[in-house]
Amino acid sequence: MATAEIGVIGLAVMGANLALNIADNGYKVAVFNRTTERTREFLASAGELADRVVPCETMEDFVAAIRPPRPVIIMVKAGDPVDQQIAMLRKLMDRDDIIIDAGNANFRDTMRRFKELDGTGLTFIGMGVSGGEEGARHGPSIMVGGKEASWKRVEPVLTAISAKFKGEACAAWLGENGAGHFVKTIHNGIEYADMQMIAEVYGVMRDHLGMAASEIGDVFDRWNKGPLDSFLIEISATVLRAADPETGKPMVDMILDAAGQKGTGRWSVIESQMMGVPATAIEAAVAARSLSAMTGERAEAEKLLGLPGPGKAGDKQAVIDDLEQALLAGKVAAYAQGFAVMAAASTEFGWDLPMPVIAKIWRAGCIIRSRFLDEIAGAFSKDPNVSNLALTSAFSKVLLETDGALRRVVAGAVTNGLPMPALASSVSYFDTLRRARGTANLIQAQRDFFGAHGFKRMDKAGDFHGPWGSGAV
Amino acid sequence: MATAEIGVIGLAVMGANLALNIADNGYKVAVFNRTTERTREFLASAGELADRVVPCETMEDFVAAIRPPRPVIIMVKAGDPVDQQIAMLRKLMDRDDIIIDAGNANFRDTMRRFKELDGTGLTFIGMGVSGGEEGARHGPSIMVGGKEASWKRVEPVLTAISAKFKGEACAAWLGENGAGHFVKTIHNGIEYADMQMIAEVYGVMRDHLGMAASEIGDVFDRWNKGPLDSFLIEISATVLRAADPETGKPMVDMILDAAGQKGTGRWSVIESQMMGVPATAIEAAVAARSLSAMTGERAEAEKLLGLPGPGKAGDKQAVIDDLEQALLAGKVAAYAQGFAVMAAASTEFGWDLPMPVIAKIWRAGCIIRSRFLDEIAGAFSKDPNVSNLALTSAFSKVLLETDGALRRVVAGAVTNGLPMPALASSVSYFDTLRRARGTANLIQAQRDFFGAHGFKRMDKAGDFHGPWGSGAV
Repeated sequence: MATAEIGVIGLAVMGANLALNIADNGYKVAVFNRTTERTREFLASAGELADRVVPCETMEDFVAAIRPPRPVIIMVKAGDPVDQQIAMLRKLMDRDDIIIDAGNANFRDTMRRFKELDGTGLTFIGMGVSGGEEGARHGPSIMVGGKEASWKRVEPVLTAISAKFKGEACAAWLGENGAGHFVKTIHNGIEYADMQMIAEVYGVMRDHLGMAASEIGDVFDRWNKGPLDSFLIEISATVLRAADPETGKPMVDMILDAAGQKGTGRWSVIESQMMGVPATAIEAAVAARSLSAMTGERAEAEKLLGLPGPGKAGDKQAVIDDLEQALLAGKVAAYAQGFAVMAAASTEFGWDLPMPVIAKIWRAGCIIRSRFLDEIAGAFSKDPNVSNLALTSAFSKVLLETDGALRRVVAGAVTNGLPMPALASSVSYFDTLRRARGTANLIQAQRDFFGAHGFKRMDKAGDFHGPWGSGAV
Repeated sequence: MATAEIGVIGLAVMGANLALNIADNGYKVAVFNRTTERTREFLASAGELADRVVPCETMEDFVAAIRPPRPVIIMVKAGDPVDQQIAMLRKLMDRDDIIIDAGNANFRDTMRRFKELDGTGLTFIGMGVSGGEEGARHGPSIMVGGKEASWKRVEPVLTAISAKFKGEACAAWLGENGAGHFVKTIHNGIEYADMQMIAEVYGVMRDHLGMAASEIGDVFDRWNKGPLDSFLIEISATVLRAADPETGKPMVDMILDAAGQKGTGRWSVIESQMMGVPATAIEAAVAARSLSAMTGERAEAEKLLGLPGPGKAGDKQAVIDDLEQALLAGKVAAYAQGFAVMAAASTEFGWDLPMPVIAKIWRAGCIIRSRFLDEIAGAFSKDPNVSNLALTSAFSKVLLETDGALRRVVAGAVTNGLPMPALASSVSYFDTLRRARGTANLIQAQRDFFGAHGFKRMDKAGDFHGPWGSGAV
């Protein structure tokens, strides 16, 4: 009866592909879905892997089909459905069985679930999985949070199904309780920033240089052979070159410019805000998606405010070359911010996150995989305690090299009314960061004036108030 | 024994000034502070108002000193201290007594407290107070959340002590439970943005035009006679002209450029994120304060990355005139965003926030009081349901008039490496908003490619997937 080595609950796109991936790696996998019809469809689609799949119609059968101690991966919609699955499993599972939530959980929910399962004898793992459909099927990046001992028990199967970068598995234990889901959240936040910056340079090529979609696709294709080499640049080229089967026009030109979002972007921002760590590139990207969804308001605004004139396009190839450099600079900002948020969380939640490991398991399988991440892994391997990626020797060099291009691109966009929130936020971030003497002295003077908040002085320690006098205050 | 008409708990700067304000308006006020010494100091400082003050050394005496039904204002540090005060008051107060939390509470705490006090017979009010020390003493802006009937009971005293704008009281009931504290939070978020933008143009004058503090103060003073006329511009002039009594140098030049923050800025961002409303000017301002506090990292960054050269300064007066216009444009972005966040919250929490009233009670007393707010009040009085302030006839006109200057200022700053996060975010906001055809179509194509999220089309309704094929996915 109990022949399966592992189980998967939830056979939507991600769960189904993960189950096939597991079977493909030689494991016998029990599967269960809320609707039995989907389970049958899944079995039919499994092809020659079907004999390593044990389809189950009830949760009881499902649990009974797995050899104890049972590892069970839950891949259902984040939120209440996860709690419901856990509640059902608790009734059926035995001591030492392992529940693995592989969905896009908010890490605070994961931490709550750890607490709730504490002392029940069951083991819990919160696991971030990135790679989309294709990654789930052939090798995702896997970010594990939980007890290290729990990880050890499932390491073989998770390592087997994960992506490999030059032979190294892109699966790792990152820390206790919510660590895995937190890192996945920040992964997604960075993904938002990456995608937004790509959309911004696409906009310059489309609306300023007047390039057709396929021509822009060719540019991305070329960039994919250089320092921007990455999954997102690669698929940008692919989608830009695709034709709409219905109209024959470029597919992207037929797609509504209203972006969806599922929560990980805003969670990244909220958590970084709570810890006081600037994550402005992610903030800009989330805001841009929100604004994109306000299609009616945008149409009204264009009618009312008009668009600034197109301005002089300048030398086309020079602009395109600048865009490539600007994207690279923007990536430094986004990743420096993302890693700084993780460093703060590591302290805040006592996780001791291994930064070099995170960079390494993001080099393949996940959506933000890139040559760039290999360089980050290198920088962190040299010094795991970097306070800011932008200040490492490798990346400060990149910044100095790309500085001029980034400024030309952003200043040009600002002049010509081309939306560039994320890249502009990168310039602001670098310029605020690199100025030893900033302008917050005026803010402190104002705060002391109206609220008697006090200030520090440049020339000596202590707390001081200004000579504004009680008449002023 | 019970001779006081109202009580104030907490005699730090804000509470003490509020109590004096109440006494000054003819009310007899009982006061209590955790440390009796502070209560004695307070009485000594009350001067001829002392005979309208009833100093109390115990909470029991305090409650007994007020005529029932007793209105009691709590003005202590936000958080646990408020809960402790409420717990103590609950033991001593009678049915129909009113507890008013006037501190900078997170509105979510206020909503919890409403729930906790529900059915106890006590009445609760969450009240935002803005105006700093001076406002508390001579007339703050007062934002009330709670039952309308509760407001009616305290309206006379709150109206009396509030600021007046051309005779109209800057105190109002804004909605149930957390409405008052929410509006105060967004007030502060906008205040962050206002202050940051002022700091940014100050930076251009100081670091790019090479102007001395007092000369910059003169510019602010001139601006204060035009459309930027406001408390924050006024005090900027004052603090910039003040000399440090110790060194004789300009005071601001001796103040450390590390800004503090107390939470309302980040709460504004977090709440706007939760509702998916872009508040990028506030985000930029909060991030700038966080970066300002990283003094060590900034010094290291300047050493490593250097500062971009000063660039050509251009015609000084023309730059200064542009800065004035840019500030005005930036304000439109910040206020449009802040009011949009409040509109979303009004729906989310069922408050039915009266936008024209909010604009009106911010015209005097509070930190962001300005001529600009009178214009906002006018715009909202014309149409209380504006979806975006930037799209009203009054403010779209301002935007069109200031557009060129804003672009010149931000593009110049980007070129010359002058930090300008909040004003740059305004340009990005307007340019994303005013473009009917944005670039999120590429983001949707990417999301569909790697995650099968689907997209909408330009030419017909429905949900679609791209022709990427299963090979692509």
